[in-house]
Amino acid sequence: MKQHYEVVVIGGGIIGCSIAYYLAKEKVDVALFEKGQIGLMTTSAAAGMLGAHSESNGEDTIFSFARSSQQAYLRLKDELYQLSGIDIGYKEGGILKLVFSDTDKHQLTPLLKQPTAEWLDKEEVKKREPLIAPNILGAAYIKDDVSVIPDQTCESFAKSARALGASIMESNGVYQVEKKDGNYLVRTMHGDVEANYVVFATGVYGNGLFRQIGLDEELIPIKGESLIVHSEQHVLEYTLFHESCYIVPRNNGKLVIGATMIKKDWSDTVSLEGIKFLIEKAKAMIPSAIEWKIDHVQAGLRPGTFDGNPFIGRHPEEERILIACGHYRNGILLAPATGEMIRDFVVGKDINNGWMQTFRVDRRQSIVV
Amino acid sequence: MKQHYEVVVIGGGIIGCSIAYYLAKEKVDVALFEKGQIGLMTTSAAAGMLGAHSESNGEDTIFSFARSSQQAYLRLKDELYQLSGIDIGYKEGGILKLVFSDTDKHQLTPLLKQPTAEWLDKEEVKKREPLIAPNILGAAYIKDDVSVIPDQTCESFAKSARALGASIMESNGVYQVEKKDGNYLVRTMHGDVEANYVVFATGVYGNGLFRQIGLDEELIPIKGESLIVHSEQHVLEYTLFHESCYIVPRNNGKLVIGATMIKKDWSDTVSLEGIKFLIEKAKAMIPSAIEWKIDHVQAGLRPGTFDGNPFIGRHPEEERILIACGHYRNGILLAPATGEMIRDFVVGKDINNGWMQTFRVDRRQSIVV
Amino acid sequence: MKQHYEVVVIGGGIIGCSIAYYLAKEKVDVALFEKGQIGLMTTSAAAGMLGAHSESNGEDTIFSFARSSQQAYLRLKDELYQLSGIDIGYKEGGILKLVFSDTDKHQLTPLLKQPTAEWLDKEEVKKREPLIAPNILGAAYIKDDVSVIPDQTCESFAKSARALGASIMESNGVYQVEKKDGNYLVRTMHGDVEANYVVFATGVYGNGLFRQIGLDEELIPIKGESLIVHSEQHVLEYTLFHESCYIVPRNNGKLVIGATMIKKDWSDTVSLEGIKFLIEKAKAMIPSAIEWKIDHVQAGLRPGTFDGNPFIGRHPEEERILIACGHYRNGILLAPATGEMIRDFVVGKDINNGWMQTFRVDRRQSIVV
Amino acid sequence: MKQHYEVVVIGGGIIGCSIAYYLAKEKVDVALFEKGQIGLMTTSAAAGMLGAHSESNGEDTIFSFARSSQQAYLRLKDELYQLSGIDIGYKEGGILKLVFSDTDKHQLTPLLKQPTAEWLDKEEVKKREPLIAPNILGAAYIKDDVSVIPDQTCESFAKSARALGASIMESNGVYQVEKKDGNYLVRTMHGDVEANYVVFATGVYGNGLFRQIGLDEELIPIKGESLIVHSEQHVLEYTLFHESCYIVPRNNGKLVIGATMIKKDWSDTVSLEGIKFLIEKAKAMIPSAIEWKIDHVQAGLRPGTFDGNPFIGRHPEEERILIACGHYRNGILLAPATGEMIRDFVVGKDINNGWMQTFRVDRRQSIVV
Ligand SMILES: Cc1cc2nc3c(=O)[nH]c(=O)nc-3n(C[C@H](O)[C@H](O)[C@H](O)COP(=O)(O)OP(=O)(O)OC[C@H]3O[C@@H](n4cnc5c(N)ncnc54)[C@H](O)[C@@H]3O)c2cc1C
Ligand SMILES: Cc1cc2nc3c(=O)[nH]c(=O)nc-3n(C[C@H](O)[C@H](O)[C@H](O)COP(=O)(O)OP(=O)(O)OC[C@H]3O[C@@H](n4cnc5c(N)ncnc54)[C@H](O)[C@@H]3O)c2cc1C
Ligand SMILES: Cc1cc2nc3c(=O)[nH]c(=O)nc-3n(C[C@H](O)[C@H](O)[C@H](O)COP(=O)(O)OP(=O)(O)OC[C@H]3O[C@@H](n4cnc5c(N)ncnc54)[C@H](O)[C@@H]3O)c2cc1C
Ligand SMILES: Cc1cc2nc3c(=O)[nH]c(=O)nc-3n(C[C@H](O)[C@H](O)[C@H](O)COP(=O)(O)OP(=O)(O)OC[C@H]3O[C@@H](n4cnc5c(N)ncnc54)[C@H](O)[C@@H]3O)c2cc1C
Repeated sequence: MKQHYEVVVIGGGIIGCSIAYYLAKEKVDVALFEKGQIGLMTTSAAAGMLGAHSESNGEDTIFSFARSSQQAYLRLKDELYQLSGIDIGYKEGGILKLVFSDTDKHQLTPLLKQPTAEWLDKEEVKKREPLIAPNILGAAYIKDDVSVIPDQTCESFAKSARALGASIMESNGVYQVEKKDGNYLVRTMHGDVEANYVVFATGVYGNGLFRQIGLDEELIPIKGESLIVHSEQHVLEYTLFHESCYIVPRNNGKLVIGATMIKKDWSDTVSLEGIKFLIEKAKAMIPSAIEWKIDHVQAGLRPGTFDGNPFIGRHPEEERILIACGHYRNGILLAPATGEMIRDFVVGKDINNGWMQTFRVDRRQSIVV
Repeated sequence: MKQHYEVVVIGGGIIGCSIAYYLAKEKVDVALFEKGQIGLMTTSAAAGMLGAHSESNGEDTIFSFARSSQQAYLRLKDELYQLSGIDIGYKEGGILKLVFSDTDKHQLTPLLKQPTAEWLDKEEVKKREPLIAPNILGAAYIKDDVSVIPDQTCESFAKSARALGASIMESNGVYQVEKKDGNYLVRTMHGDVEANYVVFATGVYGNGLFRQIGLDEELIPIKGESLIVHSEQHVLEYTLFHESCYIVPRNNGKLVIGATMIKKDWSDTVSLEGIKFLIEKAKAMIPSAIEWKIDHVQAGLRPGTFDGNPFIGRHPEEERILIACGHYRNGILLAPATGEMIRDFVVGKDINNGWMQTFRVDRRQSIVV
Repeated sequence: MKQHYEVVVIGGGIIGCSIAYYLAKEKVDVALFEKGQIGLMTTSAAAGMLGAHSESNGEDTIFSFARSSQQAYLRLKDELYQLSGIDIGYKEGGILKLVFSDTDKHQLTPLLKQPTAEWLDKEEVKKREPLIAPNILGAAYIKDDVSVIPDQTCESFAKSARALGASIMESNGVYQVEKKDGNYLVRTMHGDVEANYVVFATGVYGNGLFRQIGLDEELIPIKGESLIVHSEQHVLEYTLFHESCYIVPRNNGKLVIGATMIKKDWSDTVSLEGIKFLIEKAKAMIPSAIEWKIDHVQAGLRPGTFDGNPFIGRHPEEERILIACGHYRNGILLAPATGEMIRDFVVGKDINNGWMQTFRVDRRQSIVV
Repeated sequence: MKQHYEVVVIGGGIIGCSIAYYLAKEKVDVALFEKGQIGLMTTSAAAGMLGAHSESNGEDTIFSFARSSQQAYLRLKDELYQLSGIDIGYKEGGILKLVFSDTDKHQLTPLLKQPTAEWLDKEEVKKREPLIAPNILGAAYIKDDVSVIPDQTCESFAKSARALGASIMESNGVYQVEKKDGNYLVRTMHGDVEANYVVFATGVYGNGLFRQIGLDEELIPIKGESLIVHSEQHVLEYTLFHESCYIVPRNNGKLVIGATMIKKDWSDTVSLEGIKFLIEKAKAMIPSAIEWKIDHVQAGLRPGTFDGNPFIGRHPEEERILIACGHYRNGILLAPATGEMIRDFVVGKDINNGWMQTFRVDRRQSIVV
């Protein structure tokens, strides 16, 4: 292990790995420390939707950020494969936001104003997805909201970053960050290193370090449970989405049914209640889902923040401590744009002002004022 | 592999292994051939209840057979541990057959006439199992209906049989049995052997061989799916039973929630429908079961017969071909008595006449006449 | 289930699924019966190399057959993805047949005469694979010997066949095939069907049925054990091959180290001996392989024949019974060409005469004469 | 969650659970906080030997402590089963410390002076374990060094503690301990509680908290990898031990081959190198071990200290902060005695002075002086 790096990234989930990748591409001397294994925490539990539209209504700042990130994946899928030999599981088709009631329909009004969203009536939905529940009324179709396989994507970022010169170290947690001679001393299980910049990409797991560096914000876990299933039939062309639950068909033949939302639960077990809920949701979308076979179950902790938006930006008092946490339901989608934004902070490029304001770390205090 | 054995047993589930054990104890020269691994088919999917009462009403012939088998386990648990070093997971406590309605109660009337069954009123049930559903009306308590861990019990039979001199061969299927010079020629994947007696302990998987040896009976699969779960709390003292579903607490800390009944399904996958059904059944017995955590799911094929009773006895035309198949929901319970009965056919001891008539292989034809 | 099909395929490994696919493409009315699940037997244990050159020396008939099959995959990868939504894991790069001794080198002489094989000297090999063992002398490089992920490929064939109209039934074994009124009666666990043609794609598992239909050939299992591993680093660009062992990097980030060759072993367990052997082989190719982490182990039974070539062709006496078994080490590679050849028997297209002679089912008898 | 407990135990491995159990037995108001799940860290990776003799030479203080702990298990096995319904997997038989060389023999000299150890010559060892390597020279036999199943034992302690009134909370990590009004404020992920006593039973994972409470000691991970295997045969009566590796037969039919010793490695992956080493060690003891079949692999981090002995005792400056960490290779063995000792600190009973001195937390400083 070297004794000095220009940038140290703490955390090897998809956010940290994307950051390391974009920095390495700029030939920045970057090291990433992951206390466990790359991509095995929240990232590995994600469904992998790049739901720029499906998770928002196309109106807020985060939408433009999400769209930019979604588009980045178009280039990344080949770029990362070239560098790492790993397929990110990019699966075209897009998403259907299903409408079973007037309320459902009403909620889609703003989204349907977007040029990228298209209204499909009942018949059209049935034609595209013949197994859909008969009480379907229609759907918003967003072709661009495709999906990837999260753990493969994360690993691909990490190996590509390595190929470009980044140092990626697993099983090496950071337990302290302190100032030293104008730089930062990063204390890890395998020794201390110095860095000009430190990036916190610790997902929901960073509260302890946050306190150390005087940050008054807290990440809140929102646990999500999912089922990984398969079917003899080729059952779905599109991702289906309804009331924050979904069925995602993957390019390896599996389907993901997700996900529960359990606040402040730090466990990663899967309860019978969660399973029952997910089966009922899947059945409401596709009645014959009840015949699908289970492969396994999984759970992960979404990193939530007080307002649902991630923290991406500078520590209020330490401008070379950068934060990139709290991506909640959308970290897979937002990884490329987050990586680019952190890179821009480091290399000093211009950054979209709306994004800076929306994601700044001390926005709660500002609101109060 | 020797060229001749006195007895060849086909099938290494709990029935075949028990038979090999009881024969080896009598110093009979016995070989068992299992096409896969010992105990990995139906046996490994069982819950392990020794439900002599819970699965019958205490009135039929099978009840006396079941009771005799249940009692055999009292000695076996130490005997098998001494010989094999394997604990069969014998767990005392007994079973509560729950009553939630007058119909439930009514169905228990014959059972409650047995001296081994005891009526517990609502309060007593609540005292013994505080987590029970509040709409409980009472329960029949059968102390003797304890449980074991099926795969460990089966392996213990097999290794004990080996310790006593039996030859047990895995990954060696039998594909043909034919007559030769007054004996039987048993053709296996690893060569032919001769035997004076051949025992079919093939569970539900013997229909092909049955046809070869001119047997007109068919085993019918009744698939059962279960959930293996755990809880932070010590939640259950007793096995709970209601409408052919149950929750069995094991001595390794796991709970088994079982089981569905799907006729003529030869698959061993677990469907979302089955899982949902089991969660609902468990919740009806223990509302807080919904909080339990899943470990894994499993499925197996109960070997059913036309009348629900096993075939244990001689081939109608070949008296040294013995059949021991079709133990349906009770093969774990009935393994010792079946082993003893087959041993008695071989060594020529007296056999209870009621059992012989009830389990004889050609009983369907007799009925018709 | 319909009562009549034009073609019934028995067996849903990669061979049966490819056959069903090519027949369905020609709008032939085809049903496939699989006793377990699609692709879970030998197929799921394969490494997935399309080793047209690596498994032969480029001189025999099988080479032209293998090359034609390999090229078919170039089209199939997109075709199958369109129809099934499943990625077959096609990974470019090619293979290095490593040379550590003069004997190694000598054995490659015929191969190196092929225009598709290229000699790389020591330095070039080191440049391409920096982790290679230092005692490397050179390698034959075959760009066309790429790889796929076998279970995904098989499932993709099955779902694509279904999309084109084939009936694919799992958990439904065939236990008898007999003649009836000029057609064949195929008896399955879920009832009888008639067919004009029956295709045996039963892998190594068809000996019982072979006897029934009067075929005097036997499939011989050659068990192969493998390790599935991963590494923090992106360690390999190419498949490495030496003395019938290999390391295959997959596009999902895993590496496969294979495989042992154990004759006449019908088990699918993995022994400590096998594991040790594979670790030593991997280490001999890549010394730092010793640091790789294990994910899981697997084993499968290669379907061997008396001369190492598959049986693809007509039953000697029943011209509408077709055989497609015995693909030994190369069933993944040979699946497309086998599917096309069986299709041609059914629809009556011309078939390469060399292939017909090499793969005919009764070639042993002919040799004897 | 209550706001005040008399004792808070941090960590739900076997040490913490044993402490909670012994405190609850004394009716002390105790809560235990575990950040993950009970017993899933180092404890679940242990082999489970109660090797009072096998891990020492019978001469040091730790030997008397270990013996007392070993004897406690004789009572505990029934006590815990009564309270929790969980079998701890206590398996009699004892251990053979194998001698293959003069050096081996020489090292056993002190041990063989113990009345509990018995010398077995070559023939006797062969008689007891017929599969032993032919170059065996003899063995020290210790009947009392039996084994348990670690995860079941730990869970049994936890559920028994609960049955006696302890509060055991999973998925609830402690991130800070500070003084408050003469008591301690324990800050957990689910809120703050106060306690009169705080016990650190954090295994190797407590270094961060140690620093917070001003403790200058560090736990050092010594990673150990193992193989869980099975055999068709009943292969072993005794635990075999040689050069810190071993084969432990369990009462569930599995065998554990352990374990590597890798210092300062914080990962829990299993490398090919580790697997190869273990296979070679097993083969050296039992040549036919090479035929055993693998079930799975596992790894865990032994909590090491500067001198190899655990820290059990008071914080040097805070007498109501108690430490119980660093049980290295023997935490399963030492759990009962540790639980009793911590209980005695809390309830104010006399404690063996030798043990107090050997295990005191500030002994390094004392040595220096
Ligand atoms: C059920 C579910 C479904 C989801 N579906 C989607 C989806 O479809 N689309 C989408 O875009 N998002 C989805 N998400 C959200 C997405 O998973 C998260 O937003 C994303 O994974 C967050 O990535 P991360 O890198 O911030 O966190 P993580 O993946 O948790 O990575 C943080 C890493 O930091 C490491 N770490 C923490 N502290 C330290 C330290 N001190 N030293 C060293 N390392 C440390 C951790 O070990 C961890 O590996 C889903 C989430 C869940 C739970
Ligand atoms: C969900 C479920 C719950 C259950 N719960 C209970 C319970 O609580 N209590 C109870 O008593 N019972 C229970 N049962 C029933 C019990 O599991 C069965 O009755 C019992 O396992 C049957 O044992 P077997 O040996 O006949 O069959 P199997 O265990 O299926 O063994 C038959 C063996 O024969 C082998 N074989 C077949 N053909 C050949 C051949 N040609 N050559 C070589 N080998 C061959 C097979 O590979 C197989 O291993 C349950 C069953 C299920 C599915
Ligand atoms: C370790 C290993 C590595 C390998 N690596 C490669 C490689 O890199 N490249 C390559 O090309 N090949 C490889 N192979 C070889 C390849 O796996 C096989 O040649 C191929 O899978 C054979 O396919 P199959 O469809 O004939 O057999 P299977 O996959 O075994 O399919 C046969 C199917 O028939 C079913 N069946 C049998 N009898 C009946 C019945 N009566 N009724 C209904 N269904 C029935 C079975 O259940 C089974 O699913 C490897 C094999 C092994 C073991
Ligand atoms: C391969 C191997 C073989 C072994 N074999 C044996 C053997 O045969 N016999 C034997 O006696 N010993 C054996 N051991 C040693 C034994 O496993 C350990 O000594 C013992 O498990 C230590 O127990 P523990 O409770 O201290 O630690 P752990 O089991 O690691 O428990 C500590 C717990 O504290 C929790 N924790 C940590 N920090 C916090 C926090 N801040 N808040 C809440 N919870 C926290 C952790 O999550 C963890 O669950 C073996 C070990 C290994 C690795």
